[in-house]
Amino acid sequence: MAATIKDIAKKTGLGLATISSYLNGGNVREKNRIKIEEAIEELHFEVNEVARGLKTNKTKIIGIIIPELNNIFCAEIITEVEDQLRSQGYATMICDCRTDERREEEAVEFLLHRRVDGLIIMPSGRQGKYLNRFTKAGKPVVVIDRKLDGVDCDSVLVDNEGAARDAVGRLLKAGHRKIGMIAGPKDIYTAQERYRGYCLALKEAGIEPEARFAAWGDYTIEGGASAMKELVTRNSDMTAIFVSNYEMTMGAIIEINELGIRIPDELSFIGFDNVEFAKASIPKLSIVTQPTEEIARHVAALMLKRLEESGDTDGHQAVKLKTSFVEGKSV
Amino acid sequence: MAATIKDIAKKTGLGLATISSYLNGGNVREKNRIKIEEAIEELHFEVNEVARGLKTNKTKIIGIIIPELNNIFCAEIITEVEDQLRSQGYATMICDCRTDERREEEAVEFLLHRRVDGLIIMPSGRQGKYLNRFTKAGKPVVVIDRKLDGVDCDSVLVDNEGAARDAVGRLLKAGHRKIGMIAGPKDIYTAQERYRGYCLALKEAGIEPEARFAAWGDYTIEGGASAMKELVTRNSDMTAIFVSNYEMTMGAIIEINELGIRIPDELSFIGFDNVEFAKASIPKLSIVTQPTEEIARHVAALMLKRLEESGDTDGHQAVKLKTSFVEGKSV
Repeated sequence: MAATIKDIAKKTGLGLATISSYLNGGNVREKNRIKIEEAIEELHFEVNEVARGLKTNKTKIIGIIIPELNNIFCAEIITEVEDQLRSQGYATMICDCRTDERREEEAVEFLLHRRVDGLIIMPSGRQGKYLNRFTKAGKPVVVIDRKLDGVDCDSVLVDNEGAARDAVGRLLKAGHRKIGMIAGPKDIYTAQERYRGYCLALKEAGIEPEARFAAWGDYTIEGGASAMKELVTRNSDMTAIFVSNYEMTMGAIIEINELGIRIPDELSFIGFDNVEFAKASIPKLSIVTQPTEEIARHVAALMLKRLEESGDTDGHQAVKLKTSFVEGKSV
Repeated sequence: MAATIKDIAKKTGLGLATISSYLNGGNVREKNRIKIEEAIEELHFEVNEVARGLKTNKTKIIGIIIPELNNIFCAEIITEVEDQLRSQGYATMICDCRTDERREEEAVEFLLHRRVDGLIIMPSGRQGKYLNRFTKAGKPVVVIDRKLDGVDCDSVLVDNEGAARDAVGRLLKAGHRKIGMIAGPKDIYTAQERYRGYCLALKEAGIEPEARFAAWGDYTIEGGASAMKELVTRNSDMTAIFVSNYEMTMGAIIEINELGIRIPDELSFIGFDNVEFAKASIPKLSIVTQPTEEIARHVAALMLKRLEESGDTDGHQAVKLKTSFVEGKSV
């Protein structure tokens, strides 16, 4: 039989109110604190967070919805977010949606029934209407890496346009004029921003972006490989390429190896994310890197802040972070 | 105001028992089922899984404890496990322990208080005593990739000894005699098994394993890089190397690039896991691969089976799966 709060009261001779106050983090006299902790130890008393959740109407669980746990950018952020939230007593329920909007809606429903206190999401698409069921219930939503239409929430973004503009600017500075880009899915915010940055850099150099130099991948390794093949087949005059996420960078490199193209002699290359992979490549790749730890810290901090406010929000925040550039030998 | 089961009773004119039976998946007459579903739709009734959990003493949550979500082997397995469990109505709480045994114990405690129905764990160390708190409470534990002393649970393993023996056998067959190995942490089961396989293959070829040819990494990229450096510095006569996990494979390749060593001319190389990285390398790497999807399917199936049995277990299972080998151009 599991010990109950009544057993602790009996053991310590203290009132239920005092013990309840202790268990809920309230103020208790030092003398009583020691008594209670001894009794907890002795009776093997365990807090039932489920029962507590029902009483306080807080489960202390945060739902997390991501497109792919296998995506290294997601994994790095989620690892850190989970860590930060757990240190504050919050559990996380992570749902991987395999970049499928239908699964994402189901996950939202699933987490609603689980009565999570808040939701952290990196949406697969650009519609976020179904998130309003959370916000209407007064539960905070923090969106990572996307801007959603018509949802009342905080977001943590990266300056994707600036990152792409800077990367392509470096290729232009190195003398390239026929620069290709492997872009992400057209309906994803980050992909649009990165493509916009690419176009902007070209225009600033007096070059009109040509459709033949852009291939639309799907942020996967396979997508990166086939986009690479498409660009090379279509453009024999292309001398440089910018690839706009990590998985596609790996896929593009695989395809470049298959085709026997030499970097940087025949093709200059700038990739995205993952310093280790860039270092493991021959030659070392120049890449844009995103501040995953900083993103995670902002996401966790915003969520914790909103949970404390419990509804009384003074307008929503959109935090925008800067990327970095790691120089390799691929340009 | 959220609709309650009483509102549905009022709307449908049915008894609470009937509605409760429907909500808990019991048998209800077709006519009544339609009535109830219409009422649920109309009243925007939502099942409160938390309250239900308290009544049934089942939360339908499975705890998952892993050493590193950033580790691609972990991420691939967890993605699939989460998917399979969710399709059966189970949520997962994932705790990343950063390969720290103290954090792992805390996570076990944390999940106990959350009253999870079962635990899936890839332990960081080899002691699992604290897992007995789960098994004693009649809650199933499934261990991935480890054998633990004195814990009453199921496990899903890979034939690590056989995998290493086969890989080193290929190097021997190619004529190598001075073969190095980057092994994992000495206290981790998989690392011991892989090292044993390496020694076995050498002995079968009449070679006595020498301590100078083994470096003990820590399953990280940095660990792989420094172990590689150590081996090369110590053994100018080493002609081949076997690296025994993915992160260390990447680290070793980074260090090999730093040192300007040519594969396979100066050093033959067999790595571990991640087909994509092997393909993205120049030359393509030969690697041992683990069946992550199959592991995940077995883990989920065992957990679901034990949850159904609820305590009435007919002895525990240790599933052992075979690895594969992907031929590259690095030997």
